Amino acid sequence: MSTINFDLTKIKALIFDVDGVLSPDSIPLNDDGVPMRMVNIKDGFAINHAISKGLGMAIITGGDSEAVRLRFSRLGIEHIYMKSRIKIHDFNDYISKTGFEPEEIVYIGDDLPDIPVLKRVGLPVAPVDAAPEVKAVAKYISYCKGGQGVARDVIEQVMRAQGIWGNEEAFGW
Amino acid sequence: MSTINFDLTKIKALIFDVDGVLSPDSIPLNDDGVPMRMVNIKDGFAINHAISKGLGMAIITGGDSEAVRLRFSRLGIEHIYMKSRIKIHDFNDYISKTGFEPEEIVYIGDDLPDIPVLKRVGLPVAPVDAAPEVKAVAKYISYCKGGQGVARDVIEQVMRAQGIWGNEEAFGW
Amino acid sequence: MSTINFDLTKIKALIFDVDGVLSPDSIPLNDDGVPMRMVNIKDGFAINHAISKGLGMAIITGGDSEAVRLRFSRLGIEHIYMKSRIKIHDFNDYISKTGFEPEEIVYIGDDLPDIPVLKRVGLPVAPVDAAPEVKAVAKYISYCKGGQGVARDVIEQVMRAQGIWGNEEAFGW
Amino acid sequence: MSTINFDLTKIKALIFDVDGVLSPDSIPLNDDGVPMRMVNIKDGFAINHAISKGLGMAIITGGDSEAVRLRFSRLGIEHIYMKSRIKIHDFNDYISKTGFEPEEIVYIGDDLPDIPVLKRVGLPVAPVDAAPEVKAVAKYISYCKGGQGVARDVIEQVMRAQGIWGNEEAFGW
Repeated sequence: MSTINFDLTKIKALIFDVDGVLSPDSIPLNDDGVPMRMVNIKDGFAINHAISKGLGMAIITGGDSEAVRLRFSRLGIEHIYMKSRIKIHDFNDYISKTGFEPEEIVYIGDDLPDIPVLKRVGLPVAPVDAAPEVKAVAKYISYCKGGQGVARDVIEQVMRAQGIWGNEEAFGW
Repeated sequence: MSTINFDLTKIKALIFDVDGVLSPDSIPLNDDGVPMRMVNIKDGFAINHAISKGLGMAIITGGDSEAVRLRFSRLGIEHIYMKSRIKIHDFNDYISKTGFEPEEIVYIGDDLPDIPVLKRVGLPVAPVDAAPEVKAVAKYISYCKGGQGVARDVIEQVMRAQGIWGNEEAFGW
Repeated sequence: MSTINFDLTKIKALIFDVDGVLSPDSIPLNDDGVPMRMVNIKDGFAINHAISKGLGMAIITGGDSEAVRLRFSRLGIEHIYMKSRIKIHDFNDYISKTGFEPEEIVYIGDDLPDIPVLKRVGLPVAPVDAAPEVKAVAKYISYCKGGQGVARDVIEQVMRAQGIWGNEEAFGW
Repeated sequence: MSTINFDLTKIKALIFDVDGVLSPDSIPLNDDGVPMRMVNIKDGFAINHAISKGLGMAIITGGDSEAVRLRFSRLGIEHIYMKSRIKIHDFNDYISKTGFEPEEIVYIGDDLPDIPVLKRVGLPVAPVDAAPEVKAVAKYISYCKGGQGVARDVIEQVMRAQGIWGNEEAFGW
């Protein structure tokens, strides 16, 4: 576990890719030949906790999975972009809707289609098993693999820096 | 495999969190966007064996999974608290119903909502991949990750200390 | 990969436990709360290949899974004992039906209910993650974990010793 | 990550086995006792990207899985041979239909039935957990296990050698 070298008190929102970030690279196919995404429960707790403290949260994914939409909207994420072909377009839509500045945003991505957004935000992050091109543009490389706690790692560091992690209210979610 | 430093002959019951304890952190989503919990078969054998020898067993989880309820009631667990928002309330309900003292109880948890109960019981336990705040209050940290044998590790040590583990009757379950 | 120290030319049959042997310890629950067993494809190739060369194969499991029965009968295993509570009874049934001597049999098991059969056969085998009591009675401990190639490891060694592994016919299964 | 010692500019097509190559060895059974294949998302991105750049792609598998057929035809693979008993026959069918020379082809396989095709192609490749007989005939052994990025590793090296990997168009798939 390493520490993010960035002024995390400025962060207002976190945006996640799904495959290779919230879900691991290797996942089962359902009977219809659609990959069944996996989630990390500690990620889920942190996402829900962060939203309750007012942090912005969004998902931008090239995939199209109703299961993903249901899971993360239940955790409180309002902005979920699916079937995103040019991710920077959806990123621009998100910042125009929310009014956040790119420098106030963390984006976590793992593969080539994430690079244009990673180059745009204040804090670009990669899981440890991201593509080398992605790690080259990331300012922080998490010790976690995709789907194995990378969201938790980053959210927790942001919230600790902002003094909003894990106080008593967190104990009853 | 390390040894629990506690007088295990006093233990009368074990209480388990589900996500990150009986089930691992990273699990698939079903088509309805609900995480499919995973179980450990050696945990299951130990739970069933312990109940047959008279140890108390309970589950307190923030989740809501009929699959979990079915699996663990089939193994013999009567007290299964789901959708627990304030876990200490359900813990208090359990001890009032059973008459056990908090000092006679093992609680195994992995994340922030478990901390108030961990602080209350005689033997608070954490899996090796628990949140750091949880490991800080645990008296024993299992060598196992959540979902990968932590219940087996603890149950086996309790039963060995009480002289009720693995005699001939265990061979036909 | 270590070598079995036993005269493998005498082996006429192999018997497998399922959970922790053909399937790993940690597995998902389906919606009905029933553990979904996992299989290893290289195990499957070896089982099918061994049967085609005349080796006996059986399964004795405490579980009750139609999926397991379907999978392994498709691979050619005729003798599949499910819901086995006293495994030595089913073992005795198998040897009385086949006429094999206990010394001619490999049994692979991982937990306490397997011990009476392991003590009875010529070559008792344990996966590397078996219970310590099981490893204590095994004559060979595979380098593989349950569900991750232990059947392949043992079948391959038996067939190589008997000169029936991997000749040209194996290439079209 | 090691480098393939082969003139990759000559490669015109890649052919994949499924079990142990595009999917890992250990996979869940569905309720009908059929193994649920798993896929790697980074493999999928690379397969789709390679096809868009004109590389040939095929699958030859002994298995029979509609989920596999659906997944990989959606990614753009036209030639998918299922229930292949003698893989060299399907390989011959593929080269007669496409006009590629065997020396222009990569084949990735992991078990005995793959050996005749591996011996035939220009660049035979094995995952790191392939059977030893397969690794013995491979000219390149990937650092990846089956189902965990072996296709990505090889496709990426081929495309980099040909100067067609990861330019700007890759960012919107």
